Amino acid sequence: MAAARKYLKLDQPFPMRRGGSLPSVQIAYETWGELNAARDNAILIFTGLSPSAHAASSALDCSPGWWEDMVGPGRPIDTSRFFVVCVNSLGSVFGSTSPASINPQTGKPYRLSFPILTVEDIARGGYEVIRSLKIEKLRCVIGPSLGGMTVLAFAAMFPDAARSLISISGAARSTPFTIALRSLQREMIRKDPAWQGGNYSADAVPVEGMRLARKLGMITYRSAKEWLQRFGRERASVEHKPDDPFSIDFEIEAYLESHASKFVGQFDPNAYLYLSRAMDLFDLADHGEGSLSEALKRFKLESVLVIGVETDLLFPIEQQQELAEGLSGTGREVNFARLNSLQGHDAFLVDMDQFRPVIGDFLRGL
Amino acid sequence: MAAARKYLKLDQPFPMRRGGSLPSVQIAYETWGELNAARDNAILIFTGLSPSAHAASSALDCSPGWWEDMVGPGRPIDTSRFFVVCVNSLGSVFGSTSPASINPQTGKPYRLSFPILTVEDIARGGYEVIRSLKIEKLRCVIGPSLGGMTVLAFAAMFPDAARSLISISGAARSTPFTIALRSLQREMIRKDPAWQGGNYSADAVPVEGMRLARKLGMITYRSAKEWLQRFGRERASVEHKPDDPFSIDFEIEAYLESHASKFVGQFDPNAYLYLSRAMDLFDLADHGEGSLSEALKRFKLESVLVIGVETDLLFPIEQQQELAEGLSGTGREVNFARLNSLQGHDAFLVDMDQFRPVIGDFLRGL
Repeated sequence: MAAARKYLKLDQPFPMRRGGSLPSVQIAYETWGELNAARDNAILIFTGLSPSAHAASSALDCSPGWWEDMVGPGRPIDTSRFFVVCVNSLGSVFGSTSPASINPQTGKPYRLSFPILTVEDIARGGYEVIRSLKIEKLRCVIGPSLGGMTVLAFAAMFPDAARSLISISGAARSTPFTIALRSLQREMIRKDPAWQGGNYSADAVPVEGMRLARKLGMITYRSAKEWLQRFGRERASVEHKPDDPFSIDFEIEAYLESHASKFVGQFDPNAYLYLSRAMDLFDLADHGEGSLSEALKRFKLESVLVIGVETDLLFPIEQQQELAEGLSGTGREVNFARLNSLQGHDAFLVDMDQFRPVIGDFLRGL
Repeated sequence: MAAARKYLKLDQPFPMRRGGSLPSVQIAYETWGELNAARDNAILIFTGLSPSAHAASSALDCSPGWWEDMVGPGRPIDTSRFFVVCVNSLGSVFGSTSPASINPQTGKPYRLSFPILTVEDIARGGYEVIRSLKIEKLRCVIGPSLGGMTVLAFAAMFPDAARSLISISGAARSTPFTIALRSLQREMIRKDPAWQGGNYSADAVPVEGMRLARKLGMITYRSAKEWLQRFGRERASVEHKPDDPFSIDFEIEAYLESHASKFVGQFDPNAYLYLSRAMDLFDLADHGEGSLSEALKRFKLESVLVIGVETDLLFPIEQQQELAEGLSGTGREVNFARLNSLQGHDAFLVDMDQFRPVIGDFLRGL
């Protein structure tokens, strides 16, 4: 466990939005830069489904973070100016309380006894971290993908806790297309006999189900155009097994296999199921009695940046545009960046040449 | 087995394009209308991956066919004018020789001893049927999806066998995006323990793998826009199981479950694997020594209609446009219909209001 990781431990019950509560919770986070005397230069980052709080390297942990090019001194999220906090989502497995954690009341892992997880619970986890740091108002709250949903929940639930917001390839609600894809990913894991109704042992996790689910994720995180350019109809260098007509043949198949295998073992299958389901359940309209525009009226933000990518299959550009339009209001600055990156939903991790200036310009302008 | 189904039986070895041969083959087909005395009013239809040769009802089989609204007297493919033949693809299970058929040399099903299947082998199967019917030149050869690939292979292999061609939501080659999706579908089946390396018994087929693969197919056959309109965030009427946080909750999940369950049992898993792989392997450029434009130069067609759908995820409209442009040549009429149907790749089965006039007008103009 890296030395940069800090923990918020709450020993009182943590009520969950859809019912039930956790007897205690722990939220892992990392920080970069210095909180100023007025405590008003803080930025909070929520992550996508799979990363840890290690967004960038630091003196305490020199390994590169998942957003290394974005966070640091002189980088777009400039840690010489801002105090930056990144939280590991509640329900995720990199130090925060998750279905793989031990339930202190039973001494056993929660597994499926973990209450239903929502994006709102993740937002509350981040809120508790900044409260524990005595930060009353964030300069900005930022999140991509699942994090792009979480910042919206955060702004609706804690309207006084942030002055500005950046939602990247997020969405105000899940569409049936993405619900279908995630539901199928979950089914791949649940249908793996090794899943055992969630009661798999540590040395026999449902690796085949996880590998399939990850492959489907990877296929939908990128764009068909990018793959056409990268792989075309190239054949894999590994030899096609002559006795198995369905073994790996094309380079794209070899690429998916090698990346999916890396992911398996890094992430607890039950935690994956809970976080995936949380995305399906998210609908910002729940904060406006069923009306998205009513929910958006609760936001007290001074400025907003919505970033969308034209090739994003999962959170299509139309959803980003609607969100930006819905957030426009008197006296608020709303920026909508429509990027033509080839890398689809994952572009925020890859196409840094386009993302850096957009995020950097917005934050410099605050 | 319906009385409308006819069979071509070839008792000599049928050589397969990628090596090996079948000792004998059977191709199932149906016909509608009458072949005229000049034998020049015939239309041949190749199907998508899963249908049988039963494209439309007839006196011998009154059950509705898979393209009922398209084929019949007075319909766009007008059986009062044309003699229409639809073949069940070689490798498919509705009467044609497939991996589920008995190998006459061993008395056992072929299973994975079936040679590699290609789109070209399917095209040859259709060619043998029309040759057996003493048809030298088709008025038109038509196919959607896999059939849209097959008609291109047919025109390259048998340039004198058809005067015109309609390719619907097909492609001159598979892209890495569709290869990735199909490869994953095949892996879902192969990773089902019931698959047994292809040696499953008839009463224990890999139903879970087939159900997952079918769901992924259904997700990609339609469009995100259509589902947003149809389902939105509607909840399923079936009760969410309180003890299983991942049971069906949204209407889209219930829809996929009910349709996937219907498909399982109708289609042999090994046959599905072979047909799916055939689509990956297809590259029309193989008929032009690696050059698509050289391959297209072999075509001797008088007129061509290429139909594409803007919401098609699998065979995107750009691929259709490239094909239409590549087919343009002196003295040939090339029509490109760009349809804005919401139903994605499956639109040819659903959006009849747009497809009927486009196909009807083209055929009336012949």
